[in-house]
Amino acid sequence: MPEISRRAAEMPASPIRKLVPFANEAKARGVKVYPLNIGQPDLPSPPQAFQALREVNRDLLEYSPSEGLLSLREKLTEYYGRFNIRTSADEIIVTTGGSEALLFSFMTCMNPGDEIIIPEPAYANYLGFAEMCGVKVVPVVSSIESDFALPPVAELERLITPRTRALLICNPNNPTGYLYSRSEMETLRDLVKKHNLFLISDEVYREFCYSDEPYMSVYHLEGIEDNVVMVDSVSKRYNECGIRIGTLLTRNAKLRAAVMKLCQARLSPPLLGQLVAQASIDASAEYMQATYDEYISRRDFLVEGLNRIPGVYSPKPRGAFYTVAALPVEDADDFCRWCLSSFDYEGQTVFMAPASGFYSTPGAGRNQVRVAYVLKKEELAKALLVLEKALEAYNKQ
Amino acid sequence: MPEISRRAAEMPASPIRKLVPFANEAKARGVKVYPLNIGQPDLPSPPQAFQALREVNRDLLEYSPSEGLLSLREKLTEYYGRFNIRTSADEIIVTTGGSEALLFSFMTCMNPGDEIIIPEPAYANYLGFAEMCGVKVVPVVSSIESDFALPPVAELERLITPRTRALLICNPNNPTGYLYSRSEMETLRDLVKKHNLFLISDEVYREFCYSDEPYMSVYHLEGIEDNVVMVDSVSKRYNECGIRIGTLLTRNAKLRAAVMKLCQARLSPPLLGQLVAQASIDASAEYMQATYDEYISRRDFLVEGLNRIPGVYSPKPRGAFYTVAALPVEDADDFCRWCLSSFDYEGQTVFMAPASGFYSTPGAGRNQVRVAYVLKKEELAKALLVLEKALEAYNKQ
Repeated sequence: MPEISRRAAEMPASPIRKLVPFANEAKARGVKVYPLNIGQPDLPSPPQAFQALREVNRDLLEYSPSEGLLSLREKLTEYYGRFNIRTSADEIIVTTGGSEALLFSFMTCMNPGDEIIIPEPAYANYLGFAEMCGVKVVPVVSSIESDFALPPVAELERLITPRTRALLICNPNNPTGYLYSRSEMETLRDLVKKHNLFLISDEVYREFCYSDEPYMSVYHLEGIEDNVVMVDSVSKRYNECGIRIGTLLTRNAKLRAAVMKLCQARLSPPLLGQLVAQASIDASAEYMQATYDEYISRRDFLVEGLNRIPGVYSPKPRGAFYTVAALPVEDADDFCRWCLSSFDYEGQTVFMAPASGFYSTPGAGRNQVRVAYVLKKEELAKALLVLEKALEAYNKQ
Repeated sequence: MPEISRRAAEMPASPIRKLVPFANEAKARGVKVYPLNIGQPDLPSPPQAFQALREVNRDLLEYSPSEGLLSLREKLTEYYGRFNIRTSADEIIVTTGGSEALLFSFMTCMNPGDEIIIPEPAYANYLGFAEMCGVKVVPVVSSIESDFALPPVAELERLITPRTRALLICNPNNPTGYLYSRSEMETLRDLVKKHNLFLISDEVYREFCYSDEPYMSVYHLEGIEDNVVMVDSVSKRYNECGIRIGTLLTRNAKLRAAVMKLCQARLSPPLLGQLVAQASIDASAEYMQATYDEYISRRDFLVEGLNRIPGVYSPKPRGAFYTVAALPVEDADDFCRWCLSSFDYEGQTVFMAPASGFYSTPGAGRNQVRVAYVLKKEELAKALLVLEKALEAYNKQ
């Protein structure tokens, strides 16, 4: 049998994925499992999305341009304008989800063996894309004690080597819900300028900032126009994860030309998703506000509930729809598995994501879990009770 | 300004893409340009595809499983059964177009620096995917003089080095329309078995075999179950290039597990495309037959027409919807550009793909072009006349 590649063999299997069989077994035993583990919103997609599908009026579902439909890219400039992100259709490349935008950023910004600095805990798939590209992830640990703020600039700068090519942030952050401050953003700006690095910013949770400060994108930073790559997706903002439409934005024309070569090799992004995404940009202010209000209310409910459980600590996230909480356990991987395999409270249990999958520093975040608030409050209330009972039972063993 | 990666800088820009601006300028001058350059079918998608869109009845366009919807994978086993390809839903991974299936095959079968042997002329994007993965393409030239048959096994075997990990065929072939014979397939089987190589087979043109011999897939070969990877797509068979649904099939469980890690990193294939693809498998026999008959009739018309032009030679393709023809010119790149930039016949010209983009051997196929027959016969007739006039004028300069 021919051997599979090292890059595939060495790709980390996500700790969340490893638990899926246990969750399935629990369900098979008739246990109700509260899915706190994934970022799959439960809220409806906007009516404009379905209207667009009903209105598909063509004979042929043909290739779209490799850079995406012009009409979508033009509509997106209008959307970004609402956030004071000044761009043009030419600067926007439509990708197959934010995932492809990330993969193509990594492939065009870095050579195999190059290094990218990523604050952790971080979205687990960054590690996967890095592995695909032969890129080394250099983590900067942000700690729950400081509510996941960036470490001081000296600590970041210490990690820069001759192989460092890029710095990646996710803002608002998955998994922590952290929102970078203006002063942190300016620190990053100065750093990438000084060291001539790319600054890749994953901003797919832009709509979900729960702070009074004005939203700050990397696109707002001046003087590093050629360094900035923004990654985006419609998945979270319109509850349309399945249509696989993302974007990559950069003012760096050379980089865009490089990304376009990759785009041409894969021919085109999904046509139907583009039609839906374009229509969704017209989702009403009421729809957007209702989603936003729902998340804020769930966040408050969840975080208060978590912090009421003895020994549990969760910072109050200022963005996205996740929080990383510390639990009174030594090994959250074991605890999360145990919840699924050996525990139920009145026929219910919880599926949480062990935070170990979001750290590449061995041993970091061992007692932490990521909890997504993509469930209705009544369900969250039940899940919180189950979690409290689970912690009691686990620690009595 | 930070530098872009070498892999992006070194990715070949397609000679077809380079001509697009010239085609656009010709159109801007009011010249009618016959698009013989691309594999974008002009025939309609099946009615089942649009029916599926009208029937989308859900609140939320959510992620589908990373391996694709079970209902689609089950339906695909039924489809493959029609070709005596025995498989199961477990062996089928749904990808974002055949493109992603190719990229993931390359990433999981080969390490950077490994070699893949590909008969050329070959689909140009194989080179792009290889570049993305740091894989070296080792070409085996198949020649127009022998109607693009595989060279003798000794010639193939001579190219195998300790870094060779895979052999890739496209069958039926893009760009040549060649269909591998049973004895060629058996030669490949013996070769990959003897040298422990992967055999990747791109079979997206399966429906378009114009031969009396029974269709032969790599999946029909016995004794190399762990070596075989089949790449497929619904794009061409249902005229649905835009929905981006492909498949990767392999009986090698370790390889599937490796591919699944990549699939999980990119989360899921497009949901809407999957719904459309699943419905399209029920396209009527009449629909499939009409498409097939149309291509055969166009092929005959085109190839006869080409061979009637003095100095032009085209083999008679036995599959797909392309042919590679030799022209009475020295440099087809120059001729194709000239057709777009400096020539018209009664306000019309032709856009053909210079074959140089399908060869990685420098200088190979210099007088050849790929002609796609994705135009109606009346249009092909006009395009053939224009080509004849263009060759006369070009050679008189």
